[in-house]
Amino acid sequence: MTGRLAVVGLGPGDACYLTPEAQEALAGADTLYGYGPYLDRVPARAGQNRHPSDNREERARAAAALRHAAQGASVAVVSGGDPGVFAMAAAVCEEIEAGPEAWRTLDLAIVPGITAMLAVAARIGAPLGHDFCALSLSDNLKPWELVERRLDAAASAGFVIALYNPVSRARPWQLGTAIERLRRHLPQSTPVIFGRAVGRPDECVSVATLEAADAQIADMATLVIVGSRETRVVTRPGRPPLVYTPRAVAEVSA
Amino acid sequence: MTGRLAVVGLGPGDACYLTPEAQEALAGADTLYGYGPYLDRVPARAGQNRHPSDNREERARAAAALRHAAQGASVAVVSGGDPGVFAMAAAVCEEIEAGPEAWRTLDLAIVPGITAMLAVAARIGAPLGHDFCALSLSDNLKPWELVERRLDAAASAGFVIALYNPVSRARPWQLGTAIERLRRHLPQSTPVIFGRAVGRPDECVSVATLEAADAQIADMATLVIVGSRETRVVTRPGRPPLVYTPRAVAEVSA
Repeated sequence: MTGRLAVVGLGPGDACYLTPEAQEALAGADTLYGYGPYLDRVPARAGQNRHPSDNREERARAAAALRHAAQGASVAVVSGGDPGVFAMAAAVCEEIEAGPEAWRTLDLAIVPGITAMLAVAARIGAPLGHDFCALSLSDNLKPWELVERRLDAAASAGFVIALYNPVSRARPWQLGTAIERLRRHLPQSTPVIFGRAVGRPDECVSVATLEAADAQIADMATLVIVGSRETRVVTRPGRPPLVYTPRAVAEVSA
Repeated sequence: MTGRLAVVGLGPGDACYLTPEAQEALAGADTLYGYGPYLDRVPARAGQNRHPSDNREERARAAAALRHAAQGASVAVVSGGDPGVFAMAAAVCEEIEAGPEAWRTLDLAIVPGITAMLAVAARIGAPLGHDFCALSLSDNLKPWELVERRLDAAASAGFVIALYNPVSRARPWQLGTAIERLRRHLPQSTPVIFGRAVGRPDECVSVATLEAADAQIADMATLVIVGSRETRVVTRPGRPPLVYTPRAVAEVSA
């Protein structure tokens, strides 16, 4: 009897983002593991067990799911957005590398999903229309000095920057400090997008200039996109503005 | 009568990646515009018109779709992967900014999809598990000097690098030159992933070291991911290796 582990991306929240592949992986699992609010998004099915856990317990959750799958069960670990972007897939790989040899022979499937930056970008236009990077502002797992070095490198080389994990209760100052730092590199008029809870009832997407951007409006459910020098805002009568980064760069201006 | 334009991401190729939101947008359109092979992926529906066009005609296609929608039609432009990542959404925004005022009041929806780097990453583990960037190697729309500057910045700051548009018939040397350049910054053992046609019958995903990576195996359907110093390979008996980037960075090593 061979177990199976699927690491499944739910997308940003609404079922309209859930791919058929993800639906099938969830339907085929005996047992689901995940952060409680993500599990709550998956419709209940008779006979399917659920093991909710807290947000910061990724490695323990991954190990529990692997142990269960190694006993022959069909297990799914659910992840918001895409499991490969600041989410559960890396935690599962870490546990497989550190764990018993038998975990390496498990049938492992990673099922991609719409990650937050794609959903936020789609709502506002095409800010990721040219070269961009994705950077976690959490300094739980890396030194803040490295975050700053990456902000400097990305902004000065002209990448649009998607900021994941901008704030949490335990990390109140990081986003403000990052915005302050980006002001050294980018024009004050650079568009900054705050995308909160896209696809959920409390969705809110707004645009500010880098000069006026206020870190206080972001919370744990927010994804922030900071434009490059090329990023443009198109006003629309009676509609929200479009923000996009053109496909062409005429000269090396970054 | 108000027209509507949806820019729809089909994901990497197989229908298992097509979100319910994208299915609905395609089903609700009177007319579809897109690159021929992408349109061929959408099931035919009686009464729905199709306007296939060539790969390099993004702006003309976007303008034609906008003109059509402005006449009151419900139009969808299809895009491979995610429309906001090196695809049609930016071309549509460019045309809206440059076009007649009426285009700004159109009902515009951008429907995200699974972009190639997420699909390739999911097949091999979690190489995008920590900070990463997405960079187009096409120098049709930007100077090669800028590509090199961005490769230098990303590699030396420790970002994993996803390379879109690595080669084409008209751009045969760019990927080899980029790999050569990245060898200046990264250890020879750095994992390089070549992900071709994920989700399609001719799918092929392989891993090499940066030292051994051969640009010749990439074609237009390939997405290349170059790891950071932190990216790891986990061998698995009887299964392909896992490649992942740990969530934690212990010290500033980049």
